[in-house]
Amino acid sequence: MAKIITLLSGGLDSSTLLYELKHYGHRLHALSFDYGQRHLRELKSAQDVARTAGISWEIANLSGIVPLLGGSSQTDFTVDVPEGHYTDESMKVTVVPNRNMIMASVAVARAISLGFDAIALAVHAGDHAIYPDCRPEFVGALVRILQHCHSEPIGVYAPYSQHTTKEEIVRLGHTHNVPFKLTWSCYKGGDKHCGKCGTCVERREAFQLAHVTDPTEYEDATATH
Amino acid sequence: MAKIITLLSGGLDSSTLLYELKHYGHRLHALSFDYGQRHLRELKSAQDVARTAGISWEIANLSGIVPLLGGSSQTDFTVDVPEGHYTDESMKVTVVPNRNMIMASVAVARAISLGFDAIALAVHAGDHAIYPDCRPEFVGALVRILQHCHSEPIGVYAPYSQHTTKEEIVRLGHTHNVPFKLTWSCYKGGDKHCGKCGTCVERREAFQLAHVTDPTEYEDATATH
Repeated sequence: MAKIITLLSGGLDSSTLLYELKHYGHRLHALSFDYGQRHLRELKSAQDVARTAGISWEIANLSGIVPLLGGSSQTDFTVDVPEGHYTDESMKVTVVPNRNMIMASVAVARAISLGFDAIALAVHAGDHAIYPDCRPEFVGALVRILQHCHSEPIGVYAPYSQHTTKEEIVRLGHTHNVPFKLTWSCYKGGDKHCGKCGTCVERREAFQLAHVTDPTEYEDATATH
Repeated sequence: MAKIITLLSGGLDSSTLLYELKHYGHRLHALSFDYGQRHLRELKSAQDVARTAGISWEIANLSGIVPLLGGSSQTDFTVDVPEGHYTDESMKVTVVPNRNMIMASVAVARAISLGFDAIALAVHAGDHAIYPDCRPEFVGALVRILQHCHSEPIGVYAPYSQHTTKEEIVRLGHTHNVPFKLTWSCYKGGDKHCGKCGTCVERREAFQLAHVTDPTEYEDATATH
């Protein structure tokens, strides 16, 4: 069994990955990132999910580099969060530049300092359209660079990166008893999921397509998509 | 001409690279990293070098992730800085895990947010023995992953990574009128270079081998190596 640093945002995808890797018996340590995101609420969800899974958890504080990231609605509070479908052109504003490489590189540092041998990230096929660093080409290049960043290669678990959709992740999470109610998707970061932003629309849709009961309380329970 | 985010530690290598890229007419922005290093003194040197070169400069504050890095003499003040030759086995303790990938990934984020098209790093052949992330294989893998982390590829300038020694860098810097007196190498971070730690020994040696006058004031002016 591997010793894996698992990136945990507190959303559906990374929570499902955590439970799946746990199911296979790996030794896990969960890592969440504070990069000054508007939806800090997700860090609480990450903690709740990790605790429920019985997995050690910590935050990597990247808030110090936020001033350098500029221009994204997730870190710059003067930019409005767009509503509508997640895969729309309008969602490009939600991109934090090079986020996955930054998070992966810090996770690798943590793996090295703890004597772990791999990292896991829940990038999935549904994100390919707008996020270059969620595509299989990025994951392939990540696998290669992690052969050379330390005296021993560091492995990469990214089982959803090739073909897995959000719908399939919900189905998989359901199989592994992921506590979906604890997970967080909304980019607006209120008390409840707004039900209208890109990630909320995608979340609702995934549960419906997967025919899995959605335990989420939405502010806007009537929103259509 | 390219628009390049140049990693600038304030040492001989990165200062020489800054001056060389400036010589070739590139548009530059220099980025230094605060990762809680003992030798914060080098950040002052980086600022002085950038200012003297007339290049905009800023610090990326990574101090928030220091608690995760653990065990290196550069960040954990309970670990002694080893003395002796830089390439000795004892110098392994100075490794910050995955430092170059972390710094490169943040530099890429900055490049994207500023609309720049490349990053530059001064990894060189002399570091290969102990630092896996200074080797040509690492740089090659970095080039590849930066094809996929953004909608446009981000380039990598790492001209010293294949064969260039510290001695050759000093010669090159001399040609480009690098203000060597402003640069900082010592890992101990006192008022003057200690003259005895690994980087000081390497620095003195490089000037001697290059037959370039060493303008550095060393605490221990008599140290042999």
